[in-house]
Amino acid sequence: MTSICGTDYHVFSWDRWSAGRVTPPRTMGHEFVGEVVAVGTDVRSLKPGDRVSGESHRVCGVCLQCRTGQAHVCADTRIFGVDIDGCFCEQVCIPEASLWRNPSDLSLELACIQDPLGNAVHAVMAGDVAGRSFAVLGCGPIGLMAIAVARACGAAGIVATDTRPYRLELATRMGADATVNVAERDAEQAILDFRPSGVDVALEMSGAPPAIRAAFRVARRGGRVSLMGIPSAPVELDMAEDLVMKGLDIRCIVGRRLYETWATMSALLASGRLGVSPVITHRLSWMRFAEGMDLMGKGLCGKVILEMDG
Amino acid sequence: MTSICGTDYHVFSWDRWSAGRVTPPRTMGHEFVGEVVAVGTDVRSLKPGDRVSGESHRVCGVCLQCRTGQAHVCADTRIFGVDIDGCFCEQVCIPEASLWRNPSDLSLELACIQDPLGNAVHAVMAGDVAGRSFAVLGCGPIGLMAIAVARACGAAGIVATDTRPYRLELATRMGADATVNVAERDAEQAILDFRPSGVDVALEMSGAPPAIRAAFRVARRGGRVSLMGIPSAPVELDMAEDLVMKGLDIRCIVGRRLYETWATMSALLASGRLGVSPVITHRLSWMRFAEGMDLMGKGLCGKVILEMDG
Amino acid sequence: MTSICGTDYHVFSWDRWSAGRVTPPRTMGHEFVGEVVAVGTDVRSLKPGDRVSGESHRVCGVCLQCRTGQAHVCADTRIFGVDIDGCFCEQVCIPEASLWRNPSDLSLELACIQDPLGNAVHAVMAGDVAGRSFAVLGCGPIGLMAIAVARACGAAGIVATDTRPYRLELATRMGADATVNVAERDAEQAILDFRPSGVDVALEMSGAPPAIRAAFRVARRGGRVSLMGIPSAPVELDMAEDLVMKGLDIRCIVGRRLYETWATMSALLASGRLGVSPVITHRLSWMRFAEGMDLMGKGLCGKVILEMDG
Amino acid sequence: MTSICGTDYHVFSWDRWSAGRVTPPRTMGHEFVGEVVAVGTDVRSLKPGDRVSGESHRVCGVCLQCRTGQAHVCADTRIFGVDIDGCFCEQVCIPEASLWRNPSDLSLELACIQDPLGNAVHAVMAGDVAGRSFAVLGCGPIGLMAIAVARACGAAGIVATDTRPYRLELATRMGADATVNVAERDAEQAILDFRPSGVDVALEMSGAPPAIRAAFRVARRGGRVSLMGIPSAPVELDMAEDLVMKGLDIRCIVGRRLYETWATMSALLASGRLGVSPVITHRLSWMRFAEGMDLMGKGLCGKVILEMDG
Repeated sequence: MTSICGTDYHVFSWDRWSAGRVTPPRTMGHEFVGEVVAVGTDVRSLKPGDRVSGESHRVCGVCLQCRTGQAHVCADTRIFGVDIDGCFCEQVCIPEASLWRNPSDLSLELACIQDPLGNAVHAVMAGDVAGRSFAVLGCGPIGLMAIAVARACGAAGIVATDTRPYRLELATRMGADATVNVAERDAEQAILDFRPSGVDVALEMSGAPPAIRAAFRVARRGGRVSLMGIPSAPVELDMAEDLVMKGLDIRCIVGRRLYETWATMSALLASGRLGVSPVITHRLSWMRFAEGMDLMGKGLCGKVILEMDG
Repeated sequence: MTSICGTDYHVFSWDRWSAGRVTPPRTMGHEFVGEVVAVGTDVRSLKPGDRVSGESHRVCGVCLQCRTGQAHVCADTRIFGVDIDGCFCEQVCIPEASLWRNPSDLSLELACIQDPLGNAVHAVMAGDVAGRSFAVLGCGPIGLMAIAVARACGAAGIVATDTRPYRLELATRMGADATVNVAERDAEQAILDFRPSGVDVALEMSGAPPAIRAAFRVARRGGRVSLMGIPSAPVELDMAEDLVMKGLDIRCIVGRRLYETWATMSALLASGRLGVSPVITHRLSWMRFAEGMDLMGKGLCGKVILEMDG
Repeated sequence: MTSICGTDYHVFSWDRWSAGRVTPPRTMGHEFVGEVVAVGTDVRSLKPGDRVSGESHRVCGVCLQCRTGQAHVCADTRIFGVDIDGCFCEQVCIPEASLWRNPSDLSLELACIQDPLGNAVHAVMAGDVAGRSFAVLGCGPIGLMAIAVARACGAAGIVATDTRPYRLELATRMGADATVNVAERDAEQAILDFRPSGVDVALEMSGAPPAIRAAFRVARRGGRVSLMGIPSAPVELDMAEDLVMKGLDIRCIVGRRLYETWATMSALLASGRLGVSPVITHRLSWMRFAEGMDLMGKGLCGKVILEMDG
Repeated sequence: MTSICGTDYHVFSWDRWSAGRVTPPRTMGHEFVGEVVAVGTDVRSLKPGDRVSGESHRVCGVCLQCRTGQAHVCADTRIFGVDIDGCFCEQVCIPEASLWRNPSDLSLELACIQDPLGNAVHAVMAGDVAGRSFAVLGCGPIGLMAIAVARACGAAGIVATDTRPYRLELATRMGADATVNVAERDAEQAILDFRPSGVDVALEMSGAPPAIRAAFRVARRGGRVSLMGIPSAPVELDMAEDLVMKGLDIRCIVGRRLYETWATMSALLASGRLGVSPVITHRLSWMRFAEGMDLMGKGLCGKVILEMDG
């Protein structure tokens, strides 16, 4: 079973980034759950029949970052389904080091979406969560999952923003206490209405310059901003007022911590208290792949699962 | 409104510790919620009508610890209701620095028990919580509250131990996934049945030497032990096997962080998702004070609230 | 004894910021060491004869930030010598809570400059130091002191940048392993020549937009940037490439942690191993105040001490 | 080049621990520096001619601990020179994952002793160092190296204890500000003479029960204790007074963090400011191996280097 990531949509639509990065022919896709059918002679932790998911960042394993707990920023990362062949296929060969064995009672669908869920876990848990108020700016699938993660970990008040009513409705189902349609209202003012002194933590999940600026403005003095959205052009910031003099802590989030994030995520999923299921809005046969891509383009979905038939 | 702490029971029963520490006459009690009736001329953050609770540790404010975020271990701490007159009375004078203003919509009962709840929050949050498995050894009121706190903050699996069925039944209501009556079963084995590789975090809340030893043994390699129970005699430990070679992190917990713990606790309570209410098992008129003490002595209660009449 | 801060120079030259912030008449100055001549009735930690320095940020003491270890970002901060009368005078009344008692054997000059030295300590110690490589962008007095602090705390390789040869020569004396005159060479390239994979920590101490951009670029993947310089206009950043995708940790530095920074700084000074003295380049009679300001304006000084006569 | 570890002495003297753990024939030794003469086909980070040292803990790489930054407590650790053949030989085969490439300008002797130096770095850096006062209880080679590490990282005041004048004299050369011969003076009192309120950090490096108890007693309220010495029998502690009520943080230290400790250590050594050389007191031909063991047994050495001839 696989699911569609925003990156897959970029490649599918062959945008400028894809044309510069991807060398066809390339099997796309990096979110999956599957069953081990065979293992190499040196593999010790897995055996045929194990149900596994995979980390999409194929890292070098020997650089300073890989050896000191920061493999998520390894300079030699190759992305599964982008730089090398991915998982939109029937069988694929993956190194033991990039696989995560799932508990046997975890649903296939939840197991399948762990790669993006890990981004959400990483962004939320890059600082204190319990008892903290959160603003989640941008309700794409990862932003939506971040709401559920924050909620499961004791966040005290979550406000979410987006421009699409469909996504804001999902945000409420994921556990947001309030939502703001920033096509209609000013994000900064609406979030300060929710928490007049600012939120403890702002998660920037959109990459939109106005949201980035708002994230810094709505974080309280001494608060945290996790930056995960990727803006497509330089962004102008009032660094004096909005960053330095507020004493913010800013965490730039890329990928997942290998494998601290996976271990925490796996335990949260196993506990049954991480209410992330509403993000899965569509289950399609993999033959209806293009339909899933179309939903992604229109923002009329959360996570789209692609299932093999029979 | 006040509630009865184990310390109050010690003083009431005039045990050896009390006889050595308390100088009568002394107004007992340190857990309360009340209304400000008047403030001094320099008070800026409170006004008559505010609903407040109080920190029982009256600290010096000027020592190294007080000035560097460790006021909870100030060497000059005087305890409200022990070293100075406490709150089992109609009105009491408390410095602004020892008061915490409650949100107006917080229930009186929850506001009242924040001093001991803060111990639980401190013990649980002295390290990572979300996605971690917990063993709570000792289900007195603070141990019970720790279960609810861990649950609210994303703990993934909580096993609780005690010798009293009444308390274990409460543990389940507070959110424990499993309970162990250590009068009947070996704590270590039972906890390892729950998590075969050991728990990520062991909270020692009893002070009983066998529980202390079990806490170190059931923590997984590289795990955390929070020590809060106070043993009444020296304890013998297999430090080589059970501590050093396992690479444990051990956090000794006393009081509450002033006021990080209060801020987090207050936000958790305000969120409505901290399910701590079941710990409040009795509500008595303050005239029935001795009856509450009797329940405490027998362990047939969680938290006992004392209410003024009319 | 007092010393001149860059802020004093701003007020002295009555720039736009000063005209908007300062209400004359106002006694300037906030860096000092002095002797207690009298104490109020409630003062417990100080007595006449004690040698004290002072924290320039007069904070409210009761807000969330003040109560949770973040008083340096208290929204109600009044700055001594800016918002209220300061220390360029013979005697001044200061609350006990804003004073720090110096060890009796600490030199007056070192005691005097602790307020700005604390900024340096805060910026350097906002993350790991020992064994880390540092780039210090901007060698004003606080940047210079940051070099000595990093050196004393085990930094492994420090490169410093500025446009003024006088300051770069001082940087070498403070312990920099390499200096770069960014009026002559490209900062980014020169720092990468020093550490080809980037530095572990970049300290932005200048507020100049090119230096801010360089700080993000020269930090290694997964590294830290401490931002302390205050730019006077919005700054444009390539957030995607230079921040988010590198997984940086960014710490915005304002003031000093009350009083963690003071405690650490005081112990470092007492150890005699913090080689910060070269930053003190001028000792003037306070009658020659204007001369000191002139040196500040021209950048031909490190720290300027003003001494009372006789 | 190799050096002799205390573990080697245990095996050489075939004590009870060795007889229970080691299966002869076994090549001893795990501290070394050597030159790569050949690499396997999958090796990417090393090539013939590289000068390498090695981590003695051969870990599984796939367990929870190995995957989450705690490989130093992997339950499946095999120790090089104990459980598998070690380095007291001319050539040895070691997996890439257990090797660390040294900078070409690092002296052979310093490169050789990194495995035990890493223990010292781990013990010292398990919490804040700069501006903290330290007591080092036990001046075996690792205790001695811990003194130099603390000094290099900004420790403000270091007192060291041992029973042997030879080792205390070395402690002074490593940078201790004071030493205490605990055969002559009470450790606790002597350390409190050095720091009347207790030290910020106590490093227990001896495993002797009186030193362990003293470590907890001399740590200040809210301080840290790093436990690295391995007691040979259970130890009785006054946990109430000496641990819990002081709010201590206790870090149990085993091995080195893979490879955070190595990265930090390597950078400290490269900086030239880690004054660890005095610990190397003897350089012997490897033919004089038994002589080195004899020195170890008598405690009349720091680190003993064994060199190949010609």
